[in-house]
Amino acid sequence: MPTYKAPLRDIRFVMNELLNFNGHYAALPNGEEAIEVVDAILEEGAKFAENVLTPLNQIGDQQGCTLKDGKVITPEGFKEAYQQYVDGGWPSMTQNPEYGGQGLPHSLGLTLNEMICSSNLAWGMYPGLSHGAMSALEHHGTEELKQTYLTKLVEGRWTGTMCLTEPHCGTDLGLIKTKALPQEDGSFKVTGTKIFISAGEHELSENIVHLVLAKLPDAPEGSKGISLFVIPKFMPDAQGEAGERNAVSCGSLEHKMGIHGNSTCVMNFDNATGFMVGQPNKGLAAMFTMMNAARIGVGIQGQGLIEVSFQNALAYARDRLQMRALSGAKAPEKAADPIIVHPDVRRMLLTQKAFSEGGRALILYTAQLIDLVEAGSDEQKKEADEILGLLTPIVKAFLTEVGFEATNEGLQVFGGHGFIQEWGMEQFVRDARITRLYEGTTGIQALDLLGRKVLMNQGETLRKFTKQIHKYCQAAEAKEGMSQFTQPLAELNKEWGELTMKIGMSAMQNRDEVGAASVDYLMYAGYVLLGYFWAQMAEIAQQKLAEGTNEAAFYQAKLDTAVFYFKRLLPRTKTHATAMTAGVDSLARMDADAFGLGFEI
Amino acid sequence: MPTYKAPLRDIRFVMNELLNFNGHYAALPNGEEAIEVVDAILEEGAKFAENVLTPLNQIGDQQGCTLKDGKVITPEGFKEAYQQYVDGGWPSMTQNPEYGGQGLPHSLGLTLNEMICSSNLAWGMYPGLSHGAMSALEHHGTEELKQTYLTKLVEGRWTGTMCLTEPHCGTDLGLIKTKALPQEDGSFKVTGTKIFISAGEHELSENIVHLVLAKLPDAPEGSKGISLFVIPKFMPDAQGEAGERNAVSCGSLEHKMGIHGNSTCVMNFDNATGFMVGQPNKGLAAMFTMMNAARIGVGIQGQGLIEVSFQNALAYARDRLQMRALSGAKAPEKAADPIIVHPDVRRMLLTQKAFSEGGRALILYTAQLIDLVEAGSDEQKKEADEILGLLTPIVKAFLTEVGFEATNEGLQVFGGHGFIQEWGMEQFVRDARITRLYEGTTGIQALDLLGRKVLMNQGETLRKFTKQIHKYCQAAEAKEGMSQFTQPLAELNKEWGELTMKIGMSAMQNRDEVGAASVDYLMYAGYVLLGYFWAQMAEIAQQKLAEGTNEAAFYQAKLDTAVFYFKRLLPRTKTHATAMTAGVDSLARMDADAFGLGFEI
Repeated sequence: MPTYKAPLRDIRFVMNELLNFNGHYAALPNGEEAIEVVDAILEEGAKFAENVLTPLNQIGDQQGCTLKDGKVITPEGFKEAYQQYVDGGWPSMTQNPEYGGQGLPHSLGLTLNEMICSSNLAWGMYPGLSHGAMSALEHHGTEELKQTYLTKLVEGRWTGTMCLTEPHCGTDLGLIKTKALPQEDGSFKVTGTKIFISAGEHELSENIVHLVLAKLPDAPEGSKGISLFVIPKFMPDAQGEAGERNAVSCGSLEHKMGIHGNSTCVMNFDNATGFMVGQPNKGLAAMFTMMNAARIGVGIQGQGLIEVSFQNALAYARDRLQMRALSGAKAPEKAADPIIVHPDVRRMLLTQKAFSEGGRALILYTAQLIDLVEAGSDEQKKEADEILGLLTPIVKAFLTEVGFEATNEGLQVFGGHGFIQEWGMEQFVRDARITRLYEGTTGIQALDLLGRKVLMNQGETLRKFTKQIHKYCQAAEAKEGMSQFTQPLAELNKEWGELTMKIGMSAMQNRDEVGAASVDYLMYAGYVLLGYFWAQMAEIAQQKLAEGTNEAAFYQAKLDTAVFYFKRLLPRTKTHATAMTAGVDSLARMDADAFGLGFEI
Repeated sequence: MPTYKAPLRDIRFVMNELLNFNGHYAALPNGEEAIEVVDAILEEGAKFAENVLTPLNQIGDQQGCTLKDGKVITPEGFKEAYQQYVDGGWPSMTQNPEYGGQGLPHSLGLTLNEMICSSNLAWGMYPGLSHGAMSALEHHGTEELKQTYLTKLVEGRWTGTMCLTEPHCGTDLGLIKTKALPQEDGSFKVTGTKIFISAGEHELSENIVHLVLAKLPDAPEGSKGISLFVIPKFMPDAQGEAGERNAVSCGSLEHKMGIHGNSTCVMNFDNATGFMVGQPNKGLAAMFTMMNAARIGVGIQGQGLIEVSFQNALAYARDRLQMRALSGAKAPEKAADPIIVHPDVRRMLLTQKAFSEGGRALILYTAQLIDLVEAGSDEQKKEADEILGLLTPIVKAFLTEVGFEATNEGLQVFGGHGFIQEWGMEQFVRDARITRLYEGTTGIQALDLLGRKVLMNQGETLRKFTKQIHKYCQAAEAKEGMSQFTQPLAELNKEWGELTMKIGMSAMQNRDEVGAASVDYLMYAGYVLLGYFWAQMAEIAQQKLAEGTNEAAFYQAKLDTAVFYFKRLLPRTKTHATAMTAGVDSLARMDADAFGLGFEI
């Protein structure tokens, strides 16, 4: 069975040494308490992830969920773990004190998230979906809705879902058919079928609060005619507790490649009673509040899975004896050398390590932006929101793409054993596979990045951000040992702008150039971003080593990983740069009818 | 449920137009008949794959195999399909007439293999493993062993296995512990445990012939002390039929990520009676006869899975309506455009198409070399064997690496639906995952290529092959429309030699440089190879289009795919070239104890 140990030393390195979280918290209105509790939260979170969630991960995969008489039975131990989570006060940690929350900054929740995703992704989705629901209610709900639903979600006694997708549409929500009929009492009767509803039905919580996209009878066509509704599984009774059953039910469970422990439901709304959240026909905007947080959350899933896969691959690589190093025996007293001596095994392990630790830095940087958007000054909010918008699709898609690659490297380290379920490495791969798909596929994130976040304002936001990287390179390049990082980074950072300009120009001729370039563009951006953080981490490590430290091995490993990243992973930008500027012609020229002539004639 | 249609048009394009199989067959001693029957074989094979195997593929995945009272129950329909396969005379097609075979060239078997791998990989492994066993017996067995075992394998009434791996060793077979004690009658008593034995136990055939690696009591240490034995499940009786049970049994079945329909067995040999194949302590050499054929077979698995994933992704992309093309509606009469209008969806489909069709060309080229090794003149044998040795690890590892990528692209085209088992796309991914592992992982293939096949003879074999590519480029460059292909190909072909030289020089200083470069080297080689075939296919297509043809759409699509390959996939060589020459230092510098300090402190 795979093991997991929360990487507290590295989380603290990123928080304290790279990103100065104490300073960040000190400047936030809700930050003072965070400084006091951060250590306790990390340590308690680690215990919960290691001792409660990790042992349930493989069980969850093997047992999956079953639907019986309309009820979903979750895997053994999932309900008890959820109760411990509620008892520990975790659901309320970063929520608004007005509704029962502890008011701590969101970034603290994200550090916990990594540990949950590493230890048990399928379980983590039950409380995880509540966050989106809370966020939408907090920002768009009436005071009455907040008192009725948000307070219960904050307590954790109720959980939430996001109901967007329908059988015929996922990406293209303008096509949804679910209807909401206004009632005289101000409520709505909602009818329709939603699919792929994570945590749509289960008995971990007393009630489930569905946030549902539907159309009013007079709604305009397309995405401008979508409204958002809150639809509880049980109607609140006079005391505000779960009362009578609402007309919403789970029609079936999907059989999936992974995340078996989470119930992925077909949800039927059959004249179910709901209440509008936000304004009529403005549901998509309200939904995006949920979606953006969820997208960062999915990026964390990618990174968290790399971390746990890495930990287990590393243990195996140190233990498994097979062949001798080509350069001569390294453990002559043993029957063979441990496979960690082989350069290609190291390549796989270092790929995992570089993506996990680099991804962590990127995520916690983003977490600070989220804190500022939530609680900063108006000017901070505006600035942070802009950069956060730029980085969100990269965090989501880049970290899940490399997450899938890196969990596969972890499996590969095990050789044939990696394919066997018992070892648990293939579960990480199967679980990771969904992250490239849900909350918007990589292709959709890439269009969001290049089309909306970059080109729509003529690259202005991107310029702000690349300027920050440029300034960093200028400031750091003269420091001892830093030019090996700052020089390639500065070049790529400059090239990033040039590539953007080039694609922007072609896109003025043909909008399809955006789609032709977008995924390579996003991956390129991700590699440069991680290079930015790896350069900074290398700088800190070199400084510590120069000063003298009793943790020299830790800092040396950090520096070595940075060198590996720049030598072996960052050069992938070359291929992406070439591919993204290859133009749409080679994609567009083939007639749709001609693709299959090799087997259709 | 996924569908499959044998790509006969494209197979014929490769056989007749690209590789002149008629000419190739005409020059082989066993080739005349092949010319006559090739069409019938392709068509009958297609029917069997489409109508018998395809409908069983998902059933096999869902039901898997179960072990009950020592017997393995295979999925519904598998046994009947095997009987049909035997009745159709397929097992004997390419086998030696002296032992009941039809004596047709091996290449014909490989064209059938693609269809079997596309339609039902797990099923295909039952007859597939027999090929290795037949090959080892044919080349290394005594006449008595051939008469007793080979004839039954050729008939298909018995099937074979390869028993190499043990719990503590897979790659490093020198460590095996299975013992073979010589008996007075010339037989051996074999005791030991073998794992990961595909098709190790089942009731599809009347008997199972295990080819087992074991050590004699006085065997030298390591890989020089391995012998090969044939150990039947049932001892042949006086009539040569399956008689008394031998002391070999299936201890348990592995639970795996994919290929559920194939029984992956732990096999226990408990003083089982066996007979030596080949010379004492020379078993590894005899085993390599099986391994090399098996490695090409695994490459075909990778390509076959791309093909079927492509076919289904294409159908979905034409059918699924979602969003409008960025450049304006393409199907304004519909609620949205079919997703095949989106450039990024086309990128994924074309990636699949380019790898499947390019891979097919590479495989069938290799198939001709196999024919020559088997039946050519002495000089042809020698030459073909040398090039085949060079290409085998590339066929195996490159086609399975891109096979995994491309089946994942197929899944991705389906969005969230790709993750749902019902659609079948995720099964292709799970099934494809094993191909990167078994018969030697990608890392092992890469060491074989760079260390053994290229550097061990100072690049001489490679030079022969790159010279062939060079000559092709020179001959083709002046032709209309060809310089877009020959120019980049010639450059990369030249660079291939330079990179080899560079790595060879570093490896003289430090042998670990080979392991540091090897996987990127192999992938680079694979892209260049496919470029060589895509250039040739583009040339044929352009010629046909210039001449005028009533299949203009087919040839135009072929040309368009070549353009796509050169624009979007071949540039990946840039990254591989940089990574392979980055040196071992960035992999070697980290102390093995320091990798995990982020979570171990």
